[in-house]
Amino acid sequence: MLQGLARAPPRAPFSHEVADVVEEFKPAIVSFHFGLPATDLLERVKSWGARVLASATTVKEAQWLESHGADGIIAQGLEASGHRSIFLSDDLATQVGTFSLLPQIIQTVNVPVVAAGGIADAAGVKAALSLGAIAAQVGTAYLLCSETKTSQIYRAAIKSEDAQHTAITNVFSGRPARSIVNRVIREIGPINCDAPAFPLAANAISCIRKQAEGDGSGDFTPLWCGQNSSGCKEISAAELTRELAADL
Amino acid sequence: MLQGLARAPPRAPFSHEVADVVEEFKPAIVSFHFGLPATDLLERVKSWGARVLASATTVKEAQWLESHGADGIIAQGLEASGHRSIFLSDDLATQVGTFSLLPQIIQTVNVPVVAAGGIADAAGVKAALSLGAIAAQVGTAYLLCSETKTSQIYRAAIKSEDAQHTAITNVFSGRPARSIVNRVIREIGPINCDAPAFPLAANAISCIRKQAEGDGSGDFTPLWCGQNSSGCKEISAAELTRELAADL
Repeated sequence: MLQGLARAPPRAPFSHEVADVVEEFKPAIVSFHFGLPATDLLERVKSWGARVLASATTVKEAQWLESHGADGIIAQGLEASGHRSIFLSDDLATQVGTFSLLPQIIQTVNVPVVAAGGIADAAGVKAALSLGAIAAQVGTAYLLCSETKTSQIYRAAIKSEDAQHTAITNVFSGRPARSIVNRVIREIGPINCDAPAFPLAANAISCIRKQAEGDGSGDFTPLWCGQNSSGCKEISAAELTRELAADL
Repeated sequence: MLQGLARAPPRAPFSHEVADVVEEFKPAIVSFHFGLPATDLLERVKSWGARVLASATTVKEAQWLESHGADGIIAQGLEASGHRSIFLSDDLATQVGTFSLLPQIIQTVNVPVVAAGGIADAAGVKAALSLGAIAAQVGTAYLLCSETKTSQIYRAAIKSEDAQHTAITNVFSGRPARSIVNRVIREIGPINCDAPAFPLAANAISCIRKQAEGDGSGDFTPLWCGQNSSGCKEISAAELTRELAADL
């Protein structure tokens, strides 16, 4: 159980200053994490003609997002790497695997649903679509692609046996996110009530993290990684995308 | 983190007395939970011509089962209801969603793999097969079938909103198992280090459970349920099975 996570209203971190930057590009799709931004900001994004997507980690969050204006829902199964979009609960026991979450969200909402979490290859994409998703979101499989800024320490962890063991932790940012289990998660995590509130925990850990990384160690580095890293390939993102789409 | 779970050798609870009973029927398939029985017992089961299946909750457990004689592996994703077959670790962060676990086990072992966890309808069975499973195991969807002994209290919980929120808990038996979150899980769980070792916790809770059930309350009852109860139907098991197979 995390403390304080749901006390603030579920507003995705976004501002008119950020919107100014995004507006230049008028992207066709803008997606949010941790809920949705305030109504005026949401309306501003929609006024460009953008479709708004947002991630739900539970059926309740999907219902909330639909009723607050999302044009589509990303069903983020608990296999997914990095930050959970959890915004209506403090309780990590609410987090649901993709195989369960995706069909239940599809049954509940009337907007299109994108699948995320544990999808690593063309067979995974196919399975997600056969469960009713209109698209699949693949994250972890791209982490070794040539265009990424994945550091050497991070790359080494993803390619090692360690990537078989990830956990949802709040020690790196103050919000629950999935990382490969390393020393700091083992010793003070995965969930630690003393972690400063999001995003301040990142500052709290930065000094020791920098020192360790200087010594070539990822002991204190967030090693975001999903539960299925079997699709990671050291090729270009374009090639990987073509592979993922090939069988469809 | 659970204490003491992995200290005993990973032996599925089974004995020559139990084998005597099973032998009368010489079933074509015998499946085990919590690892495998001792070698002489395993050989005895195989001597009838039975194929031995066993459940794995991690890739490591699948490798262990294959190398110790399992003829097939059931990949038990964390969505699954009831007892986790976890037997090589104390750490619940090792538990993986079906969408991630199934393909990784298939990639690792050379025996056939059955999918379990979060599979609730024909589309789910289809998706599991498209991920490479040779079969799908459906549990929760059968809980309301006319042949089951699901009690009225238990049925009511499955049919209520409460079924949207399950957790892996050790308070009912001493081993981690997925149940609908009720009062006892909220108040002393989901994981409580004071729970007596498996299976003794069941005795510890039985007195208050009986009393509460007598008053029509499921506050202290194990309400085993997977993360996807959307497939539960009050029809016969035969009908449900036909529905699950219809689209294949």
